[in-house]
Amino acid sequence: MIRFDSDYIEGCHPAILARMAETNMEQTVGYGCDPHCDRARKLIQAACGRDDVDVHFLVGGTQANATVISSILKPYQGVVCSCTGHIGVHETGAIEHGGHKVLAIPGPDSKLSASAVEKLFQSHFNDPSWEHIVQPGMVYLSFSNELGLIYTLEELKAIKAVCEKWHAPLFIDGARLGYGLAAPGCDVTLQDIAQIADIFYIGGTKQGALFGEAVVIVNDALKKDFRYYIKQNGGMLAKGRLLGIQFETLFEDGLYMQLAKHADDMASLIREAFREKGYEFLTDSPTNQVFPILSMEKVAELQEKFGFETWQEVGDQMAVRFCTSWCTPVENVKALIEAI
Amino acid sequence: MIRFDSDYIEGCHPAILARMAETNMEQTVGYGCDPHCDRARKLIQAACGRDDVDVHFLVGGTQANATVISSILKPYQGVVCSCTGHIGVHETGAIEHGGHKVLAIPGPDSKLSASAVEKLFQSHFNDPSWEHIVQPGMVYLSFSNELGLIYTLEELKAIKAVCEKWHAPLFIDGARLGYGLAAPGCDVTLQDIAQIADIFYIGGTKQGALFGEAVVIVNDALKKDFRYYIKQNGGMLAKGRLLGIQFETLFEDGLYMQLAKHADDMASLIREAFREKGYEFLTDSPTNQVFPILSMEKVAELQEKFGFETWQEVGDQMAVRFCTSWCTPVENVKALIEAI
Amino acid sequence: MIRFDSDYIEGCHPAILARMAETNMEQTVGYGCDPHCDRARKLIQAACGRDDVDVHFLVGGTQANATVISSILKPYQGVVCSCTGHIGVHETGAIEHGGHKVLAIPGPDSKLSASAVEKLFQSHFNDPSWEHIVQPGMVYLSFSNELGLIYTLEELKAIKAVCEKWHAPLFIDGARLGYGLAAPGCDVTLQDIAQIADIFYIGGTKQGALFGEAVVIVNDALKKDFRYYIKQNGGMLAKGRLLGIQFETLFEDGLYMQLAKHADDMASLIREAFREKGYEFLTDSPTNQVFPILSMEKVAELQEKFGFETWQEVGDQMAVRFCTSWCTPVENVKALIEAI
Amino acid sequence: MIRFDSDYIEGCHPAILARMAETNMEQTVGYGCDPHCDRARKLIQAACGRDDVDVHFLVGGTQANATVISSILKPYQGVVCSCTGHIGVHETGAIEHGGHKVLAIPGPDSKLSASAVEKLFQSHFNDPSWEHIVQPGMVYLSFSNELGLIYTLEELKAIKAVCEKWHAPLFIDGARLGYGLAAPGCDVTLQDIAQIADIFYIGGTKQGALFGEAVVIVNDALKKDFRYYIKQNGGMLAKGRLLGIQFETLFEDGLYMQLAKHADDMASLIREAFREKGYEFLTDSPTNQVFPILSMEKVAELQEKFGFETWQEVGDQMAVRFCTSWCTPVENVKALIEAI
Repeated sequence: MIRFDSDYIEGCHPAILARMAETNMEQTVGYGCDPHCDRARKLIQAACGRDDVDVHFLVGGTQANATVISSILKPYQGVVCSCTGHIGVHETGAIEHGGHKVLAIPGPDSKLSASAVEKLFQSHFNDPSWEHIVQPGMVYLSFSNELGLIYTLEELKAIKAVCEKWHAPLFIDGARLGYGLAAPGCDVTLQDIAQIADIFYIGGTKQGALFGEAVVIVNDALKKDFRYYIKQNGGMLAKGRLLGIQFETLFEDGLYMQLAKHADDMASLIREAFREKGYEFLTDSPTNQVFPILSMEKVAELQEKFGFETWQEVGDQMAVRFCTSWCTPVENVKALIEAI
Repeated sequence: MIRFDSDYIEGCHPAILARMAETNMEQTVGYGCDPHCDRARKLIQAACGRDDVDVHFLVGGTQANATVISSILKPYQGVVCSCTGHIGVHETGAIEHGGHKVLAIPGPDSKLSASAVEKLFQSHFNDPSWEHIVQPGMVYLSFSNELGLIYTLEELKAIKAVCEKWHAPLFIDGARLGYGLAAPGCDVTLQDIAQIADIFYIGGTKQGALFGEAVVIVNDALKKDFRYYIKQNGGMLAKGRLLGIQFETLFEDGLYMQLAKHADDMASLIREAFREKGYEFLTDSPTNQVFPILSMEKVAELQEKFGFETWQEVGDQMAVRFCTSWCTPVENVKALIEAI
Repeated sequence: MIRFDSDYIEGCHPAILARMAETNMEQTVGYGCDPHCDRARKLIQAACGRDDVDVHFLVGGTQANATVISSILKPYQGVVCSCTGHIGVHETGAIEHGGHKVLAIPGPDSKLSASAVEKLFQSHFNDPSWEHIVQPGMVYLSFSNELGLIYTLEELKAIKAVCEKWHAPLFIDGARLGYGLAAPGCDVTLQDIAQIADIFYIGGTKQGALFGEAVVIVNDALKKDFRYYIKQNGGMLAKGRLLGIQFETLFEDGLYMQLAKHADDMASLIREAFREKGYEFLTDSPTNQVFPILSMEKVAELQEKFGFETWQEVGDQMAVRFCTSWCTPVENVKALIEAI
Repeated sequence: MIRFDSDYIEGCHPAILARMAETNMEQTVGYGCDPHCDRARKLIQAACGRDDVDVHFLVGGTQANATVISSILKPYQGVVCSCTGHIGVHETGAIEHGGHKVLAIPGPDSKLSASAVEKLFQSHFNDPSWEHIVQPGMVYLSFSNELGLIYTLEELKAIKAVCEKWHAPLFIDGARLGYGLAAPGCDVTLQDIAQIADIFYIGGTKQGALFGEAVVIVNDALKKDFRYYIKQNGGMLAKGRLLGIQFETLFEDGLYMQLAKHADDMASLIREAFREKGYEFLTDSPTNQVFPILSMEKVAELQEKFGFETWQEVGDQMAVRFCTSWCTPVENVKALIEAI
């Protein structure tokens, strides 16, 4: 069975394991204050093109989202996101557990548009009984998102302009940031993200690390006391150096973007193979997730040899997801293309 | 200016004020354990046709909703409601503040249907990654609802059957329960509600009391330690007898339903007047709220003499709300009909 | 049975009931935006000697405490109070339900001292692992407190100085504010409170109203969006004018302080009677609560004719509480003195 | 500098790293449902001597505590613990963030006693106004605790009897469980823990793993839907197999207890050395933490060569903590003994 189920079915890049072994008996302080974390912070600042951002390493994505959102919103505020946003549908209500409503913009789109966000803010602040309604307090989007889509630089700037108008921070969930930035046609860079977002994170778990996400705080107003939030939300690792070592490895020679590019390249091959055979796609994803729409028979046929997710019925057909990763072997892709 | 803005713009029925004055210097214990509360409890049990229900008096609707929902759901569960449900849109996130997601069923309908509720439960429990998704844990509906609509007995029983199948309590928000039960064509009685709901409340604030809602707990499993929840959620009145006295007055001679019927009658007159003039309605409400769709000119014309709410644009027209109450004078209604 | 159980066993001052009856059929907007609330706000501003404070009317004490604290603290912060503070012991964890730790200063004292508060702040901010510990974010005290005690002006100023040093707002719970201000020997005025506190409330429930507390926000930084907090925490009354009418009545001719003085005077008579007979007291309360320490026999003897609370064992004796109120008849006090 | 600062300053046992490297390119499902987790579960069940316990792997201690407590308590309940309990003092209010009060038993003891716990329950349920007070809903203790102490089998059974009387589950925090069980004089086994506790966890982070804690659910009533809680509280690792692999390694040949015993042996040597020189100790810890009381001069002298924590002033002296771990080299201990 060759698996394309998700981008976290393997361990991590071997260089990370090697570094862990090398440093295993070092004695360091805990909780992210060790030299490895310090160095990783500097490398990430350099990659972002600015040394005035704060960088924190958190254990995983749910904590990263819960922690960031908890640190920004007031109790009567909610977080705006698309109706497929991970925080709204796949975190067992972690955001509500922290007291906040997820203000999902309904509709067919998995991407936020500046106009839809503007409309939501207007509709709140124009309502005379606004105090009876949850106030939109920040905007959340994923880059790339649940359906593999990315935003253009122009789209991001337009959303940011709406955020600024309404004094609402923009938070970019980058669990798959690299896969987005490395995608063909992407005109956004990490430096752009570090200019536009008020806060964002660089995903490790799905991009070649064992686990861990690097939260980058751009907006000065959001920096104070952030470590309290990390601890309270269970995101602070006792042996914090494990996170430092991983991001050190990923960011010291451009490894992070290389791995991302590999995954996107493998996905492009798969996408092209389906396209040539005339298949339609659920979304026009340019990243490491490919969503062809297959007949039920084709699904059954492919399932004999390959692991992948059935995503959503489309008429009497099925949209499925093939997910490549930083380590997807080209032979596996070739075997799949053969079968297509 | 004659006001039809809402059903809580006046004080309370004079009999309540008189009873408050009479009993003013009585010395009683607090927090709902006094003789007036005891008697009101018995009267409500009698009206419900069963003496095995628990009755608690809470200060207001937001606390009633927050308290009941907090007492039923586990932290990872959410409450199912229609997309216009009061808890989802008009309580500033009180439910999320208590840690729970409101699982609003999207769509044009302000009423829940058994099939939509069934579909939501199925979609949760059939999802292989269910543990990543908020579990539906109870069902909430309003009788009558935000748009003045009521459920038939058959509709309620169908919803209850779905609830039982999935072991999810049914909670009926009765802020306007009387207006619903007294509506022309309603085939549901208070006794039915007290059989079908696991927990519900009888609204006082909008139905002739100064304030207060009577929560009735039908399902034994939900009775234990309920007073802790009331206190924690700010719903326990120090001078609890004020609530007892009000519900005593409303329930000792059928006053509650008389007042409700008056409001519904007044609304029927208004509705009929609009209908005769050929106006359409936003909803087919048979209760104390009437939602005609008017031209902008007509809205402006009526606003000169009458207070009412503009509800929602419908094309280039405006749906508005006229709200009658337990004390709407027939002269006011006549003046409005004249103007229509 | 003559009752001295608490200060909320009767209804309200007759002038309030009369005013409610007079205004009963007025049609007003809801939620505290009506003319009665507006007038009451102005009267309270005048009594505070400054027109730049915001005044909000909330349903009760638990909501007032939960709402104020929720509006001030960040998620990782807690509220400092004495170990007998109402929020720590008698609100069923409403503060924790809102996500915050109550940082009770242990020890025998029911009053906070500036030095104990200073020590608590120092101990937090001097701890190298502070991010693992709840940060003290505000200070709460009651005036008068659970044991009937008040603070001198100097004591309040000293506590405020500590608060300012650590940038922590000072919140004064005034459920029994009048009884404190009217006490013999009190050198604090309402105007002082409105200078020293960042936020406080003027209790209605225990001081002659049916219910309701008037929150006064002094510190500009705490004013924004406060109504959202009120609504979310269940403290916003639909028929808000009921609160306006009550505080209007209490503050238009100095009634509030007259009623408070009466209660304190009655308590002084009781206190003196016990003192003359050589009884000791649990606390040196100058307000409407008297805490004599009695033999078990004396307790039993008095319980035959009088209602009062047994408070706490002291050796083989019992400290009890006699509580007077705005309406305690002097005959009742005389009967008690007789029995002492 | 030789460090005795804490038991998590190094990486992990080399066998774990080796196993991670070996299995790195395996493709497995996520979230703890992989074969390594399954096998680790079976090994832990075997070590517990019963195959009817549920075993879940969580990322870290704060999440383990928050998740377990959230899964047990109702909103109006609190968790009883000693005043030094980790959940009360060192988790930045994570428990309160989840809505619950920590009911710390005050006093000099870091260990709970059955009688103190019994007294707390009695004091709650005997209070006539109990509904105004947070209800004790479960009991939490650490084995070994923050001050290195353990409980005897008899002590644990006595506490459990109190818990059963009041229907309150007993939760044992085993972040340092091995160090406790391996201590000289300990008469408790892992099998005993798995009989007495309703739920407990076996610490990995401080006992030779990179990170991770294994929660063991003994009481059937606490098993349902536990994975929802793990996800909501951020304790569910995407690449869950990392946790499975670690506990597999620790539990397949008794490695876990061997490592624990080593740490305790090293601590005994240090303890003996201080004792011989006549030093007093803050606590009589038999586990991997040693708390001698030193003069300030001695502290300064030792700090030149050794890392350790200053814990608490004792008169004009200082209690300090030397912490050994699964990998403390005997040479380091010898060097320290030399310096003592």
